[in-house]
Amino acid sequence: MTMRFSDRLVALVEERESQIVLGLDPDPARLWPEAVARTASIETPPEDPGLLTAEAVAHHCGLAIAAAGPSCVAVKPQLACFERLGAHGWAALKQTIAVAHEHGLLVIADGKRGDVAATAAAYGQALVGRTHGPFGEVAGLGADAFTANPLLGRDALEPLLQAADTAAAGCFILVRTSNPGAAEIQDEPVEAPLRVKLAAIADELGAERVGSAGLSDVGAVTGATRPELLAELRAQMPRAIFLLPGVGAQGGRAEDLAPAFAPHPAAGLVSASRSIVDAYADRGDDPALAAQTAAESLRLVTWRLAAAHA
Amino acid sequence: MTMRFSDRLVALVEERESQIVLGLDPDPARLWPEAVARTASIETPPEDPGLLTAEAVAHHCGLAIAAAGPSCVAVKPQLACFERLGAHGWAALKQTIAVAHEHGLLVIADGKRGDVAATAAAYGQALVGRTHGPFGEVAGLGADAFTANPLLGRDALEPLLQAADTAAAGCFILVRTSNPGAAEIQDEPVEAPLRVKLAAIADELGAERVGSAGLSDVGAVTGATRPELLAELRAQMPRAIFLLPGVGAQGGRAEDLAPAFAPHPAAGLVSASRSIVDAYADRGDDPALAAQTAAESLRLVTWRLAAAHA
Repeated sequence: MTMRFSDRLVALVEERESQIVLGLDPDPARLWPEAVARTASIETPPEDPGLLTAEAVAHHCGLAIAAAGPSCVAVKPQLACFERLGAHGWAALKQTIAVAHEHGLLVIADGKRGDVAATAAAYGQALVGRTHGPFGEVAGLGADAFTANPLLGRDALEPLLQAADTAAAGCFILVRTSNPGAAEIQDEPVEAPLRVKLAAIADELGAERVGSAGLSDVGAVTGATRPELLAELRAQMPRAIFLLPGVGAQGGRAEDLAPAFAPHPAAGLVSASRSIVDAYADRGDDPALAAQTAAESLRLVTWRLAAAHA
Repeated sequence: MTMRFSDRLVALVEERESQIVLGLDPDPARLWPEAVARTASIETPPEDPGLLTAEAVAHHCGLAIAAAGPSCVAVKPQLACFERLGAHGWAALKQTIAVAHEHGLLVIADGKRGDVAATAAAYGQALVGRTHGPFGEVAGLGADAFTANPLLGRDALEPLLQAADTAAAGCFILVRTSNPGAAEIQDEPVEAPLRVKLAAIADELGAERVGSAGLSDVGAVTGATRPELLAELRAQMPRAIFLLPGVGAQGGRAEDLAPAFAPHPAAGLVSASRSIVDAYADRGDDPALAAQTAAESLRLVTWRLAAAHA
C-alpha cells in the first residue's frame, strides 16, 4: 500500500533536510537558452510552433529540475503555463512530472481547480486518478498533490478529496493567497453574504465593458438552483449577462428565471448539459432526436419567459 | 474589428430566439453509442486508450452539437471533462470548439480559472489569447467567453479581463454557484475574514486524513507575503501542511515563515519559481548553476529556521 502524501513528504523533508518546492511556471519567451538550443537542433518540421515550443518547455523544466531539484522536495508545475500550449503543452506537463518523479521529487499540480461535485470529480480524475471509458482506462497526471479552490464550498471539495484519498495524494486548499488583491476578498470581514461582494466586483469590472444593447462583456455565473436570489443579484448587476447553470439535472427550472431577463432577452443564458445530452436515457429515444427535442423545448419555454419579462 | 462578446451574443439571441447554452460535460462511460461506434470502426492501434477515448468524445460532442445546436446560441464545454483525457483530450476540446463555431455557436469555456496575476495572464492566453515563444505564436483555445473564479480578488481578475478585451471575448465571474455547498461560503454573512472560514473548513476536512507525524493530507495555501497572518492560521490549522507561495519575486521572505513550521519541519513548504529558475538573469550566471545556488541557499535558510522553531 502506498504511504499517504503527508507521510511521504515528511520522510522526504527529513531525508533531504529541505522544505523547498521548485515552482515551474515556464514562460516560452524566457526559457533557458540551452532548452531552446536543444529543441532547435532537432530537425522537426516547423509547421507546428506549439509542438516545438512545448518541447522546449519540457527541456527547460527538465534542466531546472536537474539543477535545483537536489535542494528541493517537490516541484509545483503551474498548469496554466502548460495549458496555454494546448495538447502539446499538456504532453510537456506529463513529461515534466515524469522527470520530477525520476529525480525523487513529489509533484504538486498547481491548477487551483474547483467546481460543482460532478465536475470536481472529473478534475480529480485529471489530477490524480484515472478515467474509465469504452476503450480502457485513461491515466491522469499522476500528481502527488494538487491545489484546490474552495469558493464553491464543501460539497465541491469532497470529490477532490475522495480522489486524493484513493490515490494517497494530498490537497492544498486556498485559504489565504499571496497576491495583493486577496486582502479585499479573504481578509476583510463581510457583513453581507460573500455573493454581494462578488456581485459588486463583477458589476464594477463590467461597467467599462458595455455593448450597444446595454449588456456587459463581464457576466456572472448565478446558479439557477436558488432562483429567489436572482432579483437581488439582478438589482446589483443590471448590465451583467447571467450564465445560469443548474437547470434540469440539478433541479433548477427555466420557469423561475424571469429576473435574469429583465434588462434584455440576451441577459440570461440557460445552460443545460445532462438534460439535453442524456435525454435519450430517460426517453428511450434516439440520442440525437431526444437532444433536439429537449433543447428545442427548453428554448421555447425560456424564450417565452424572457419575452414576457424583458 | 470584431464586435464585442455581448453584442455578438445579443445578435445571436435575437436571430435564433434562444438563450440556451448546450453544456458539454462528456463522460467517456456514457457517450452516445454512435460516437463509440464511429471511433471503433477506425482501424487505430489500440495501444493508446486516451487517443481513442478522446476521439470518441469529440464525435459525441460533434453529434450533440449537430442535434441540439440549432436551438442554442452557445456551447459550454466543461474543461475538466476533456483535461482528464490528457493531451488527446485537449485536442478533442479544440476540435469541439471548431465544430461549435462551424455551427454558428458561441463557445463559453467553463474552466473556472483563477490565480495570481502572472498566472491569470497565462490562463488568458490559454483561453482566448496566444502565447509568444521562440518558435512563433501558439494559439489558445479561441473561446468566445470563459468562466472565472474571483476568490483571489480583483488583481487576479484583471489579466483575464485584459485578455478578454484584446480578444473581444466575454468573462463570466462566479458570483453565486448552483451547488448546495455554495450556501455556506457565498450566502452566509461572514463576521470574521473569509480566510477564517476557509481555514476552519480545511482543518475539518483534514482531521480524518492525518499521517503518522501528525500532519494531514489536506494542506492549505497560505501566502508568504502576509507572514503576520501565519500564526493565526497555524493556530486554526495545527495539522495542515502550509504551501507558502510568494517568496522571492512576490516579496515574501523565508525568514518570516517560522509559524508555519511549528508542528513539524515538514509542516511548511516554501514554493519558489522565478527566484530559482530566473536567478541567472540577475546574476549573469549559467542558468543551471544560478538555479542550483539559489535553491540550495533557500533550502539552508528555511531548514535552519524550521529546525529552530519546530
